[in-house]
Amino acid sequence: MSAFEPRDADWEARVRASIARQAFMNSLGVEVGDLAPGAVDLVLPFRPDLTQQHGFFHAGTTTTIADSAAGYAALSLYPKGSGVLTTEFKINLLNPGRGERLVARGRVVKPGRTLTICKADVFGIDDDRETHVATGLFSMISLEGLDD
Amino acid sequence: MSAFEPRDADWEARVRASIARQAFMNSLGVEVGDLAPGAVDLVLPFRPDLTQQHGFFHAGTTTTIADSAAGYAALSLYPKGSGVLTTEFKINLLNPGRGERLVARGRVVKPGRTLTICKADVFGIDDDRETHVATGLFSMISLEGLDD
Amino acid sequence: MSAFEPRDADWEARVRASIARQAFMNSLGVEVGDLAPGAVDLVLPFRPDLTQQHGFFHAGTTTTIADSAAGYAALSLYPKGSGVLTTEFKINLLNPGRGERLVARGRVVKPGRTLTICKADVFGIDDDRETHVATGLFSMISLEGLDD
Amino acid sequence: MSAFEPRDADWEARVRASIARQAFMNSLGVEVGDLAPGAVDLVLPFRPDLTQQHGFFHAGTTTTIADSAAGYAALSLYPKGSGVLTTEFKINLLNPGRGERLVARGRVVKPGRTLTICKADVFGIDDDRETHVATGLFSMISLEGLDD
Repeated sequence: MSAFEPRDADWEARVRASIARQAFMNSLGVEVGDLAPGAVDLVLPFRPDLTQQHGFFHAGTTTTIADSAAGYAALSLYPKGSGVLTTEFKINLLNPGRGERLVARGRVVKPGRTLTICKADVFGIDDDRETHVATGLFSMISLEGLDD
Repeated sequence: MSAFEPRDADWEARVRASIARQAFMNSLGVEVGDLAPGAVDLVLPFRPDLTQQHGFFHAGTTTTIADSAAGYAALSLYPKGSGVLTTEFKINLLNPGRGERLVARGRVVKPGRTLTICKADVFGIDDDRETHVATGLFSMISLEGLDD
Repeated sequence: MSAFEPRDADWEARVRASIARQAFMNSLGVEVGDLAPGAVDLVLPFRPDLTQQHGFFHAGTTTTIADSAAGYAALSLYPKGSGVLTTEFKINLLNPGRGERLVARGRVVKPGRTLTICKADVFGIDDDRETHVATGLFSMISLEGLDD
Repeated sequence: MSAFEPRDADWEARVRASIARQAFMNSLGVEVGDLAPGAVDLVLPFRPDLTQQHGFFHAGTTTTIADSAAGYAALSLYPKGSGVLTTEFKINLLNPGRGERLVARGRVVKPGRTLTICKADVFGIDDDRETHVATGLFSMISLEGLDD
Protein backbone atom coordinates (compact mmCIF):
# COMPACT_ATOMS: atom_id res chain seq x y z
CA MET A 1 0.00 0.00 0.00
CA SER A 2 2.84 2.41 0.74
CA ALA A 3 6.46 3.19 -0.07
CA PHE A 4 7.00 5.54 2.85
CA GLU A 5 9.08 5.07 5.97
CA PRO A 6 7.41 6.33 9.15
CA ARG A 7 9.52 8.57 11.41
CA ASP A 8 7.70 7.39 14.52
CA ALA A 9 7.41 3.66 15.23
CA ASP A 10 4.15 4.36 17.06
CA TRP A 11 2.57 6.07 14.07
CA GLU A 12 -0.45 3.76 13.96
CA ALA A 13 -1.39 4.21 17.61
CA ARG A 14 -0.96 7.96 17.23
CA VAL A 15 -3.23 8.08 14.17
CA ARG A 16 -5.93 5.97 15.82
CA ALA A 17 -5.82 8.03 19.01
CA SER A 18 -6.19 11.28 17.07
CA ILE A 19 -9.19 10.00 15.11
CA ALA A 20 -10.80 8.85 18.35
CA ARG A 21 -10.43 12.37 19.82
CA GLN A 22 -12.40 14.05 17.03
CA ALA A 23 -15.98 14.42 18.20
CA PHE A 24 -17.26 15.06 14.68
CA MET A 25 -15.74 11.80 13.38
CA ASN A 26 -17.68 9.99 16.11
CA SER A 27 -20.85 11.94 15.34
CA LEU A 28 -20.69 10.82 11.72
CA GLY A 29 -19.83 7.24 12.66
CA VAL A 30 -16.50 7.16 10.80
CA GLU A 31 -14.57 3.89 11.15
CA VAL A 32 -10.88 3.30 10.56
CA GLY A 33 -10.09 1.07 7.58
CA ASP A 34 -6.69 -0.07 6.30
CA LEU A 35 -3.66 1.82 7.56
CA ALA A 36 -0.10 1.98 6.28
CA PRO A 37 2.55 4.71 6.47
CA GLY A 38 1.30 7.47 4.17
CA ALA A 39 -1.95 5.64 3.40
CA VAL A 40 -5.11 5.83 5.50
CA ASP A 41 -8.57 4.53 4.63
CA LEU A 42 -11.66 5.76 6.45
CA VAL A 43 -15.09 4.13 6.18
CA LEU A 44 -18.46 5.83 6.61
CA PRO A 45 -21.48 3.50 6.90
CA PHE A 46 -24.75 4.83 5.52
CA ARG A 47 -27.19 6.52 7.86
CA PRO A 48 -30.31 8.44 6.82
CA ASP A 49 -29.22 11.51 8.81
CA LEU A 50 -26.14 11.87 6.59
CA THR A 51 -28.05 12.38 3.34
CA GLN A 52 -28.91 15.17 0.94
CA GLN A 53 -32.31 15.73 -0.65
CA HIS A 54 -32.14 12.68 -2.96
CA GLY A 55 -31.20 10.20 -0.26
CA PHE A 56 -27.51 9.88 -1.13
CA PHE A 57 -24.59 10.66 1.15
CA HIS A 58 -24.35 14.46 1.48
CA ALA A 59 -21.31 15.95 -0.29
CA GLY A 60 -20.33 17.35 3.09
CA THR A 61 -19.83 13.85 4.41
CA THR A 62 -17.88 12.78 1.31
CA THR A 63 -15.65 15.80 1.68
CA THR A 64 -15.16 15.37 5.41
CA ILE A 65 -13.89 11.81 5.17
CA ALA A 66 -11.74 12.60 2.12
CA ASP A 67 -10.06 15.46 3.97
CA SER A 68 -9.65 13.39 7.13
CA ALA A 69 -8.19 10.38 5.32
CA ALA A 70 -5.71 12.68 3.56
CA GLY A 71 -4.81 14.43 6.82
CA TYR A 72 -4.21 11.18 8.68
CA ALA A 73 -2.13 9.86 5.79
CA ALA A 74 0.10 12.90 6.31
CA LEU A 75 0.10 12.53 10.11
CA SER A 76 1.22 8.90 9.78
CA LEU A 77 4.56 10.17 8.42
CA TYR A 78 5.11 12.92 10.99
CA PRO A 79 7.56 12.66 13.88
CA LYS A 80 6.10 12.32 17.37
CA GLY A 81 4.93 15.65 18.75
CA SER A 82 3.79 17.17 15.45
CA GLY A 83 0.17 17.77 14.63
CA VAL A 84 -1.54 18.18 11.27
CA LEU A 85 -3.81 20.87 9.86
CA THR A 86 -5.39 21.06 6.42
CA THR A 87 -4.44 24.37 4.84
CA GLU A 88 -6.43 23.87 1.66
CA PHE A 89 -7.94 21.29 -0.62
CA LYS A 90 -9.77 20.85 -3.88
CA ILE A 91 -12.25 18.11 -4.61
CA ASN A 92 -14.15 16.99 -7.69
CA LEU A 93 -17.47 15.31 -7.01
CA LEU A 94 -17.68 12.71 -9.77
CA ASN A 95 -20.83 10.74 -8.98
CA PRO A 96 -23.65 10.77 -6.42
CA GLY A 97 -22.65 9.34 -3.05
CA ARG A 98 -24.55 6.09 -3.30
CA GLY A 99 -23.77 2.90 -1.44
CA GLU A 100 -24.00 1.10 1.88
CA ARG A 101 -20.80 2.86 2.84
CA LEU A 102 -18.27 5.34 1.60
CA VAL A 103 -14.56 4.54 1.69
CA ALA A 104 -12.05 7.38 1.53
CA ARG A 105 -8.52 6.39 0.56
CA GLY A 106 -6.03 9.08 1.62
CA ARG A 107 -2.52 8.84 0.15
CA VAL A 108 0.59 10.99 0.55
CA VAL A 109 1.82 12.31 -2.81
CA LYS A 110 4.83 14.22 -1.52
CA PRO A 111 5.92 14.35 2.11
CA GLY A 112 7.70 17.43 3.38
CA ARG A 113 8.98 19.00 6.57
CA THR A 114 6.41 21.79 6.48
CA LEU A 115 3.90 20.87 3.78
CA THR A 116 2.74 17.39 2.85
CA ILE A 117 0.71 17.06 -0.35
CA CYS A 118 -1.90 14.29 -0.39
CA LYS A 119 -4.64 12.95 -2.58
CA ALA A 120 -7.81 11.15 -1.64
CA ASP A 121 -10.40 9.18 -3.56
CA VAL A 122 -13.83 8.33 -2.24
CA PHE A 123 -15.78 5.29 -3.38
CA GLY A 124 -19.38 4.35 -2.69
CA ILE A 125 -19.60 0.62 -2.10
CA ASP A 126 -22.50 -1.78 -2.44
CA ASP A 127 -22.58 -5.57 -2.63
CA ASP A 128 -22.50 -5.47 -6.37
CA ARG A 129 -20.83 -2.26 -7.40
CA GLU A 130 -18.25 0.39 -6.56
CA THR A 131 -18.78 4.02 -7.60
CA HIS A 132 -15.99 6.60 -7.83
CA VAL A 133 -17.66 9.38 -5.87
CA ALA A 134 -14.87 11.96 -5.54
CA THR A 135 -11.20 12.74 -6.08
CA GLY A 136 -9.21 15.50 -4.42
CA LEU A 137 -5.84 17.09 -3.69
CA PHE A 138 -4.91 18.34 -0.22
CA SER A 139 -2.15 20.45 1.39
CA MET A 140 -1.36 19.53 4.98
CA ILE A 141 0.83 21.59 7.27
CA SER A 142 2.85 20.13 10.11
CA LEU A 143 2.72 22.01 13.40
CA GLU A 144 5.35 21.15 15.97
CA GLY A 145 3.99 21.01 19.49
CA LEU A 146 0.38 20.73 18.35
CA ASP A 147 -1.06 17.90 20.38
CA ASP A 148 -3.06 15.70 18.03
CA MET B 1 -26.44 42.32 -1.16
CA SER B 2 -26.88 41.28 -4.79
CA ALA B 3 -26.97 42.58 -8.33
CA PHE B 4 -28.69 39.53 -9.82
CA GLU B 5 -32.21 39.17 -11.16
CA PRO B 6 -33.90 35.90 -10.17
CA ARG B 7 -35.56 33.94 -12.99
CA ASP B 8 -38.17 32.50 -10.65
CA ALA B 9 -40.24 34.84 -8.46
CA ASP B 10 -40.55 32.02 -5.92
CA TRP B 11 -36.78 31.60 -5.59
CA GLU B 12 -36.73 32.15 -1.84
CA ALA B 13 -39.39 29.58 -1.04
CA ARG B 14 -37.64 27.12 -3.35
CA VAL B 15 -34.28 27.63 -1.63
CA ARG B 16 -35.75 27.29 1.85
CA ALA B 17 -37.67 24.15 0.90
CA SER B 18 -34.56 22.53 -0.55
CA ILE B 19 -32.50 23.25 2.57
CA ALA B 20 -35.27 21.81 4.73
CA ARG B 21 -35.19 18.57 2.71
CA GLN B 22 -31.51 17.89 3.38
CA ALA B 23 -31.26 15.55 6.34
CA PHE B 24 -27.58 16.33 6.90
CA MET B 25 -28.27 20.07 7.16
CA ASN B 26 -30.77 19.26 9.91
CA SER B 27 -28.35 16.86 11.61
CA LEU B 28 -25.74 19.62 11.83
CA GLY B 29 -28.30 22.20 12.97
CA VAL B 30 -27.74 24.58 10.03
CA GLU B 31 -29.97 27.66 10.06
CA VAL B 32 -30.82 29.93 7.16
CA GLY B 33 -29.43 33.45 7.44
CA ASP B 34 -29.82 36.36 5.02
CA LEU B 35 -31.05 35.55 1.53
CA ALA B 36 -30.95 37.54 -1.69
CA PRO B 37 -30.80 36.49 -5.34
CA GLY B 38 -27.30 35.05 -5.81
CA ALA B 39 -26.41 35.48 -2.12
CA VAL B 40 -27.18 32.96 0.62
CA ASP B 41 -25.92 32.96 4.21
CA LEU B 42 -26.03 29.83 6.34
CA VAL B 43 -25.44 29.79 10.10
CA LEU B 44 -24.09 26.90 12.15
CA PRO B 45 -24.40 27.27 15.95
CA PHE B 46 -21.67 25.63 18.01
CA ARG B 47 -22.23 22.14 19.37
CA PRO B 48 -19.61 19.93 21.02
CA ASP B 49 -20.39 17.05 18.65
CA LEU B 50 -19.26 19.18 15.67
CA THR B 51 -15.69 19.66 16.86
CA GLN B 52 -12.22 18.41 16.05
CA GLN B 53 -9.59 17.40 18.59
CA HIS B 54 -8.90 20.94 19.85
CA GLY B 55 -12.52 21.82 20.47
CA PHE B 56 -13.03 24.05 17.41
CA PHE B 57 -15.55 23.50 14.64
CA HIS B 58 -14.34 20.57 12.52
CA ALA B 59 -13.12 21.57 9.06
CA GLY B 60 -15.75 19.20 7.69
CA THR B 61 -18.48 21.39 9.12
CA THR B 62 -16.84 24.56 7.82
CA THR B 63 -16.59 23.03 4.38
CA THR B 64 -20.11 21.64 4.40
CA ILE B 65 -21.78 24.99 5.10
CA ALA B 66 -19.47 26.83 2.68
CA ASP B 67 -20.39 24.42 -0.11
CA SER B 68 -24.08 24.55 0.78
CA ALA B 69 -24.20 28.35 0.94
CA ALA B 70 -22.51 28.52 -2.46
CA GLY B 71 -24.85 25.92 -3.92
CA TYR B 72 -27.97 27.68 -2.69
CA ALA B 73 -26.66 31.00 -3.97
CA ALA B 74 -26.53 29.35 -7.40
CA LEU B 75 -29.95 27.72 -7.00
CA SER B 76 -31.51 31.09 -6.13
CA LEU B 77 -30.84 32.20 -9.72
CA TYR B 78 -32.07 29.03 -11.45
CA PRO B 79 -35.41 28.78 -13.24
CA LYS B 80 -38.11 26.65 -11.62
CA GLY B 81 -37.55 22.95 -12.23
CA SER B 82 -33.76 23.03 -12.21
CA GLY B 83 -31.69 21.49 -9.45
CA VAL B 84 -28.13 22.18 -8.39
CA LEU B 85 -25.11 19.92 -7.90
CA THR B 86 -21.60 20.88 -6.83
CA THR B 87 -19.17 19.57 -9.43
CA GLU B 88 -16.03 20.74 -7.63
CA PHE B 89 -14.69 23.23 -5.16
CA LYS B 90 -11.50 24.46 -3.56
CA ILE B 91 -11.26 25.88 -0.08
CA ASN B 92 -8.51 27.51 1.95
CA LEU B 93 -8.78 27.07 5.69
CA LEU B 94 -7.41 30.35 7.02
CA ASN B 95 -7.96 30.14 10.78
CA PRO B 96 -9.29 27.65 13.35
CA GLY B 97 -13.08 27.44 13.40
CA ARG B 98 -13.63 29.22 16.67
CA GLY B 99 -16.78 31.02 17.74
CA GLU B 100 -20.31 30.59 19.04
CA ARG B 101 -21.38 30.10 15.47
CA LEU B 102 -20.05 29.90 11.94
CA VAL B 103 -21.59 31.99 9.18
CA ALA B 104 -21.01 30.96 5.57
CA ARG B 105 -21.67 33.64 2.97
CA GLY B 106 -22.21 32.11 -0.46
CA ARG B 107 -22.12 34.47 -3.45
CA VAL B 108 -22.51 33.93 -7.19
CA VAL B 109 -19.46 35.14 -9.11
CA LYS B 110 -20.68 34.29 -12.58
CA PRO B 111 -24.07 32.80 -13.37
CA GLY B 112 -24.44 30.57 -16.41
CA ARG B 113 -26.92 28.30 -18.13
CA THR B 114 -24.91 25.16 -17.34
CA LEU B 115 -22.21 26.19 -14.86
CA THR B 116 -22.51 28.82 -12.16
CA ILE B 117 -19.28 29.86 -10.44
CA CYS B 118 -19.60 30.88 -6.78
CA LYS B 119 -17.44 31.88 -3.88
CA ALA B 120 -18.03 31.46 -0.17
CA ASP B 121 -16.40 32.85 2.93
CA VAL B 122 -16.87 31.41 6.38
CA PHE B 123 -16.55 33.49 9.55
CA GLY B 124 -16.46 32.37 13.16
CA ILE B 125 -18.43 34.79 15.27
CA ASP B 126 -18.25 35.60 18.97
CA ASP B 127 -19.65 38.51 20.95
CA ASP B 128 -16.43 40.39 20.60
CA ARG B 129 -14.71 39.17 17.48
CA GLU B 130 -15.10 37.81 13.97
CA THR B 131 -12.55 35.36 12.52
CA HIS B 132 -12.12 34.67 8.79
CA VAL B 133 -12.15 30.88 8.91
CA ALA B 134 -12.21 29.91 5.24
CA THR B 135 -12.54 31.13 1.67
CA GLY B 136 -13.42 29.01 -1.34
CA LEU B 137 -14.41 28.83 -5.01
CA PHE B 138 -17.16 26.50 -6.24
CA SER B 139 -18.50 25.22 -9.60
CA MET B 140 -22.21 24.42 -9.59
CA ILE B 141 -24.00 22.62 -12.40
CA SER B 142 -27.64 23.11 -13.23
CA LEU B 143 -29.65 19.96 -13.89
CA GLU B 144 -33.03 20.38 -15.56
CA GLY B 145 -35.69 18.15 -14.13
CA LEU B 146 -33.76 17.45 -10.93
CA ASP B 147 -36.23 17.98 -8.15
CA ASP B 148 -34.50 20.00 -5.46
CA MET C 1 -2.21 3.62 -21.59
CA SER C 2 -5.98 3.97 -21.70
CA ALA C 3 -9.25 2.16 -21.15
CA PHE C 4 -11.39 4.60 -23.11
CA GLU C 5 -13.14 4.14 -26.43
CA PRO C 6 -12.91 7.18 -28.72
CA ARG C 7 -16.18 8.37 -30.28
CA ASP C 8 -14.42 9.68 -33.37
CA ALA C 9 -12.08 7.40 -35.32
CA ASP C 10 -10.11 10.48 -36.39
CA TRP C 11 -9.48 11.58 -32.80
CA GLU C 12 -5.69 11.63 -33.16
CA ALA C 13 -5.64 13.81 -36.27
CA ARG C 14 -8.14 16.14 -34.63
CA VAL C 15 -6.03 16.48 -31.47
CA ARG C 16 -2.82 17.10 -33.43
CA ALA C 17 -4.51 19.69 -35.66
CA SER C 18 -5.88 21.58 -32.67
CA ILE C 19 -2.49 21.71 -30.95
CA ALA C 20 -0.92 22.96 -34.17
CA ARG C 21 -3.45 25.81 -34.33
CA GLN C 22 -2.53 27.22 -30.89
CA ALA C 23 0.00 29.99 -31.42
CA PHE C 24 1.06 29.96 -27.77
CA MET C 25 1.90 26.23 -27.92
CA ASN C 26 4.19 27.01 -30.84
CA SER C 27 5.68 30.03 -29.06
CA LEU C 28 6.65 27.84 -26.12
CA GLY C 29 7.94 25.05 -28.35
CA VAL C 30 5.54 22.39 -27.06
CA GLU C 31 5.87 19.00 -28.78
CA VAL C 32 3.33 16.19 -28.89
CA GLY C 33 4.37 13.04 -27.02
CA ASP C 34 2.47 9.78 -26.64
CA LEU C 35 -1.22 9.82 -27.51
CA ALA C 36 -4.01 7.41 -26.69
CA PRO C 37 -7.75 7.90 -26.22
CA GLY C 38 -8.10 9.81 -22.96
CA ALA C 39 -4.33 10.13 -22.50
CA VAL C 40 -2.17 12.87 -24.00
CA ASP C 41 1.48 13.63 -23.24
CA LEU C 42 3.01 17.00 -24.11
CA VAL C 43 6.75 17.72 -24.02
CA LEU C 44 8.40 21.09 -23.42
CA PRO C 45 12.16 21.25 -24.14
CA PHE C 46 14.16 23.64 -21.98
CA ARG C 47 14.84 27.15 -23.27
CA PRO C 48 16.33 30.02 -21.25
CA ASP C 49 13.42 32.31 -22.13
CA LEU C 50 11.00 29.96 -20.33
CA THR C 51 12.61 30.31 -16.91
CA GLN C 52 11.95 32.01 -13.59
CA GLN C 53 14.54 33.85 -11.50
CA HIS C 54 16.46 30.72 -10.46
CA GLY C 55 16.86 29.31 -13.95
CA PHE C 56 14.19 26.60 -13.69
CA PHE C 57 11.12 26.27 -15.90
CA HIS C 58 8.67 28.99 -14.88
CA ALA C 59 5.57 27.69 -13.08
CA GLY C 60 3.55 29.32 -15.84
CA THR C 61 5.05 26.94 -18.38
CA THR C 62 4.48 23.93 -16.10
CA THR C 63 0.89 24.95 -15.65
CA THR C 64 0.31 25.68 -19.32
CA ILE C 65 1.38 22.25 -20.51
CA ALA C 66 -0.42 20.49 -17.66
CA ASP C 67 -3.66 22.25 -18.57
CA SER C 68 -3.15 21.61 -22.28
CA ALA C 69 -2.34 17.92 -21.83
CA ALA C 70 -5.47 17.52 -19.71
CA GLY C 71 -7.60 19.42 -22.22
CA TYR C 72 -6.41 17.36 -25.16
CA ALA C 73 -6.94 14.15 -23.19
CA ALA C 74 -10.58 15.26 -22.87
CA LEU C 75 -10.82 16.32 -26.52
CA SER C 76 -9.55 12.91 -27.63
CA LEU C 77 -12.80 11.40 -26.34
CA TYR C 78 -15.17 13.99 -27.82
CA PRO C 79 -17.30 13.39 -30.88
CA LYS C 80 -16.37 15.23 -34.07
CA GLY C 81 -17.57 18.83 -34.03
CA SER C 82 -17.14 19.42 -30.30
CA GLY C 83 -14.48 21.70 -28.88
CA VAL C 84 -12.96 21.82 -25.40
CA LEU C 85 -12.55 24.61 -22.87
CA THR C 86 -10.97 24.45 -19.43
CA THR C 87 -13.49 25.75 -16.90
CA GLU C 88 -11.21 25.43 -13.89
CA PHE C 89 -8.23 23.63 -12.50
CA LYS C 90 -6.11 23.23 -9.41
CA ILE C 91 -2.44 22.43 -9.41
CA ASN C 92 0.12 21.62 -6.73
CA LEU C 93 3.68 22.58 -7.55
CA LEU C 94 5.70 19.83 -5.88
CA ASN C 95 9.28 20.53 -6.94
CA PRO C 96 11.22 23.11 -8.95
CA GLY C 97 10.86 22.67 -12.70
CA ARG C 98 14.32 21.34 -13.40
CA GLY C 99 15.35 19.21 -16.35
CA GLU C 100 16.17 19.21 -20.04
CA ARG C 101 12.47 18.96 -20.70
CA LEU C 102 9.13 18.83 -18.97
CA VAL C 103 6.63 16.12 -19.79
CA ALA C 104 2.97 16.65 -18.92
CA ARG C 105 0.82 13.52 -18.81
CA GLY C 106 -2.88 14.40 -19.13
CA ARG C 107 -5.38 11.64 -18.28
CA VAL C 108 -9.17 11.53 -18.26
CA VAL C 109 -10.52 10.58 -14.83
CA LYS C 110 -14.20 10.66 -15.72
CA PRO C 111 -15.59 11.41 -19.17
CA GLY C 112 -18.98 13.05 -19.49
CA ARG C 113 -21.31 14.58 -22.05
CA THR C 114 -20.87 18.10 -20.65
CA LEU C 115 -17.98 17.94 -18.16
CA THR C 116 -14.92 15.73 -18.40
CA ILE C 117 -12.71 15.56 -15.30
CA CYS C 118 -9.00 15.06 -15.93
CA LYS C 119 -5.75 14.91 -14.03
CA ALA C 120 -2.27 15.79 -15.17
CA ASP C 121 1.18 15.19 -13.75
CA VAL C 122 4.28 17.06 -14.89
CA PHE C 123 7.76 15.58 -14.67
CA GLY C 124 11.12 17.25 -15.22
CA ILE C 125 13.40 14.87 -17.05
CA ASP C 126 17.18 14.69 -17.24
CA ASP C 127 19.47 11.91 -18.37
CA ASP C 128 19.77 10.56 -14.89
CA ARG C 129 16.69 11.59 -13.00
CA GLU C 130 12.98 12.31 -13.15
CA THR C 131 11.42 14.90 -10.85
CA HIS C 132 7.69 15.08 -10.05
CA VAL C 133 7.15 18.78 -10.69
CA ALA C 134 3.38 19.14 -10.42
CA THR C 135 0.04 17.37 -10.08
CA GLY C 136 -3.36 18.79 -10.89
CA LEU C 137 -7.08 18.25 -11.39
CA PHE C 138 -8.98 19.84 -14.29
CA SER C 139 -12.62 20.33 -15.36
CA MET C 140 -13.13 20.47 -19.12
CA ILE C 141 -16.37 21.49 -20.78
CA SER C 142 -17.47 20.25 -24.18
CA LEU C 143 -18.88 22.85 -26.53
CA GLU C 144 -20.78 21.59 -29.55
CA GLY C 145 -20.05 23.53 -32.71
CA LEU C 146 -16.85 25.06 -31.31
CA ASP C 147 -14.29 24.59 -34.04
CA ASP C 148 -11.13 23.30 -32.38
CA MET D 1 -5.68 49.60 -2.35
CA SER D 2 -4.28 47.83 0.70
CA ALA D 3 -4.56 47.57 4.46
CA PHE D 4 -1.21 45.84 4.97
CA GLU D 5 1.96 47.15 6.51
CA PRO D 6 5.12 46.12 4.65
CA ARG D 7 7.93 44.68 6.77
CA ASP D 8 10.59 45.96 4.40
CA ALA D 9 10.62 49.64 3.44
CA ASP D 10 12.22 48.66 0.12
CA TRP D 11 9.40 46.28 -0.78
CA GLU D 12 8.60 47.97 -4.07
CA ALA D 13 12.14 47.94 -5.40
CA ARG D 14 12.46 44.31 -4.34
CA VAL D 15 9.25 43.31 -6.15
CA ARG D 16 10.22 45.17 -9.33
CA ALA D 17 13.72 43.65 -9.32
CA SER D 18 12.34 40.13 -8.93
CA ILE D 19 9.91 40.55 -11.81
CA ALA D 20 12.72 41.91 -13.99
CA ARG D 21 14.78 38.78 -13.28
CA GLN D 22 12.15 36.37 -14.58
CA ALA D 23 12.99 35.56 -18.19
CA PHE D 24 9.52 34.18 -18.88
CA MET D 25 7.85 37.42 -17.71
CA ASN D 26 9.98 39.24 -20.25
CA SER D 27 9.26 36.68 -22.96
CA LEU D 28 5.53 37.24 -22.51
CA GLY D 29 5.91 41.01 -22.34
CA VAL D 30 4.44 41.38 -18.84
CA GLU D 31 4.42 44.94 -17.51
CA VAL D 32 4.11 46.06 -13.90
CA GLY D 33 0.90 47.93 -13.10
CA ASP D 34 -0.22 49.43 -9.79
CA LEU D 35 1.66 48.32 -6.68
CA ALA D 36 0.80 48.57 -3.01
CA PRO D 37 1.72 46.42 -0.01
CA GLY D 38 -0.19 43.18 -0.50
CA ALA D 39 -1.57 44.25 -3.88
CA VAL D 40 0.19 43.83 -7.21
CA ASP D 41 -1.24 44.38 -10.69
CA LEU D 42 0.43 42.91 -13.76
CA VAL D 43 -0.46 43.86 -17.34
CA LEU D 44 -0.10 41.69 -20.42
CA PRO D 45 -0.52 43.48 -23.77
CA PHE D 46 -2.00 41.42 -26.59
CA ARG D 47 0.34 39.69 -29.04
CA PRO D 48 -0.67 37.12 -31.66
CA ASP D 49 1.91 34.65 -30.38
CA LEU D 50 0.13 34.49 -27.00
CA THR D 51 -3.16 33.16 -28.37
CA GLN D 52 -5.12 29.92 -28.47
CA GLN D 53 -6.93 28.57 -31.51
CA HIS D 54 -9.70 31.20 -31.52
CA GLY D 55 -7.39 34.19 -31.34
CA PHE D 56 -7.92 35.00 -27.64
CA PHE D 57 -5.25 35.09 -24.96
CA HIS D 58 -4.25 31.50 -24.19
CA ALA D 59 -5.41 30.29 -20.76
CA GLY D 60 -1.75 29.61 -20.01
CA THR D 61 -1.00 33.32 -20.24
CA THR D 62 -4.02 34.21 -18.10
CA THR D 63 -2.92 31.74 -15.49
CA THR D 64 0.72 32.79 -15.57
CA ILE D 65 0.00 36.44 -14.83
CA ALA D 66 -2.64 35.59 -12.22
CA ASP D 67 -0.15 33.38 -10.37
CA SER D 68 2.62 35.94 -10.69
CA ALA D 69 0.47 38.84 -9.50
CA ALA D 70 -0.57 36.78 -6.49
CA GLY D 71 3.00 35.74 -5.76
CA TYR D 72 4.32 39.28 -5.91
CA ALA D 73 1.47 40.49 -3.72
CA ALA D 74 2.74 37.99 -1.13
CA LEU D 75 6.39 38.95 -1.67
CA SER D 76 5.55 42.62 -1.09
CA LEU D 77 4.79 41.76 2.55
CA TYR D 78 7.84 39.57 3.18
CA PRO D 79 10.87 40.71 5.15
CA LYS D 80 14.08 41.32 3.24
CA GLY D 81 15.90 38.08 2.42
CA SER D 82 12.81 35.91 1.98
CA GLY D 83 11.73 34.57 -1.39
CA VAL D 84 8.34 33.34 -2.55
CA LEU D 85 7.19 30.11 -4.18
CA THR D 86 3.70 29.13 -5.24
CA THR D 87 2.82 25.83 -3.60
CA GLU D 88 -0.59 25.48 -5.22
CA PHE D 89 -3.42 27.37 -6.80
CA LYS D 90 -6.87 26.97 -8.23
CA ILE D 91 -8.32 29.10 -10.98
CA ASN D 92 -11.73 29.40 -12.62
CA LEU D 93 -11.70 30.57 -16.21
CA LEU D 94 -14.87 32.63 -16.45
CA ASN D 95 -14.76 34.13 -19.95
CA PRO D 96 -12.55 34.00 -23.05
CA GLY D 97 -9.39 36.09 -22.73
CA ARG D 98 -10.38 38.88 -25.07
CA GLY D 99 -9.04 42.41 -25.05
CA GLU D 100 -6.11 44.62 -25.98
CA ARG D 101 -4.53 43.62 -22.71
CA LEU D 102 -5.07 41.44 -19.66
CA VAL D 103 -4.73 42.88 -16.18
CA ALA D 104 -4.15 40.52 -13.25
CA ARG D 105 -4.91 41.94 -9.82
CA GLY D 106 -3.16 39.93 -7.10
CA ARG D 107 -4.26 40.53 -3.51
CA VAL D 108 -3.19 39.05 -0.18
CA VAL D 109 -6.13 37.46 1.66
CA LYS D 110 -4.21 36.33 4.72
CA PRO D 111 -0.53 36.96 5.35
CA GLY D 112 1.45 34.48 7.41
CA ARG D 113 4.96 33.65 8.48
CA THR D 114 5.09 30.46 6.41
CA LEU D 115 2.03 30.52 4.16
CA THR D 116 0.41 33.56 2.62
CA ILE D 117 -3.00 33.03 0.99
CA CYS D 118 -3.77 35.26 -1.98
CA LYS D 119 -6.45 35.75 -4.59
CA ALA D 120 -6.15 37.11 -8.10
CA ASP D 121 -8.66 38.27 -10.68
CA VAL D 122 -7.84 38.70 -14.35
CA PHE D 123 -9.69 41.15 -16.58
CA GLY D 124 -9.55 41.57 -20.35
CA ILE D 125 -9.62 45.24 -21.21
CA ASP D 126 -10.68 47.05 -24.38
CA ASP D 127 -11.53 50.68 -25.01
CA ASP D 128 -15.17 50.05 -24.39
CA ARG D 129 -15.43 47.03 -22.16
CA GLU D 130 -13.92 45.02 -19.34
CA THR D 131 -14.35 41.24 -19.17
CA HIS D 132 -13.86 39.16 -16.01
CA VAL D 133 -11.61 36.45 -17.45
CA ALA D 134 -10.57 34.49 -14.37
CA THR D 135 -10.59 34.28 -10.58
CA GLY D 136 -8.27 32.21 -8.43
CA LEU D 137 -6.94 31.34 -4.98
CA PHE D 138 -3.22 30.82 -4.32
CA SER D 139 -0.99 29.50 -1.51
CA MET D 140 2.44 31.09 -1.36
CA ILE D 141 5.27 29.83 0.81
CA SER D 142 8.00 32.03 2.19
CA LEU D 143 11.53 30.69 1.94
CA GLU D 144 14.17 32.39 4.04
CA GLY D 145 17.44 32.83 2.25
CA LEU D 146 15.92 32.32 -1.19
CA ASP D 147 17.25 35.15 -3.29
CA ASP D 148 14.35 36.57 -5.25
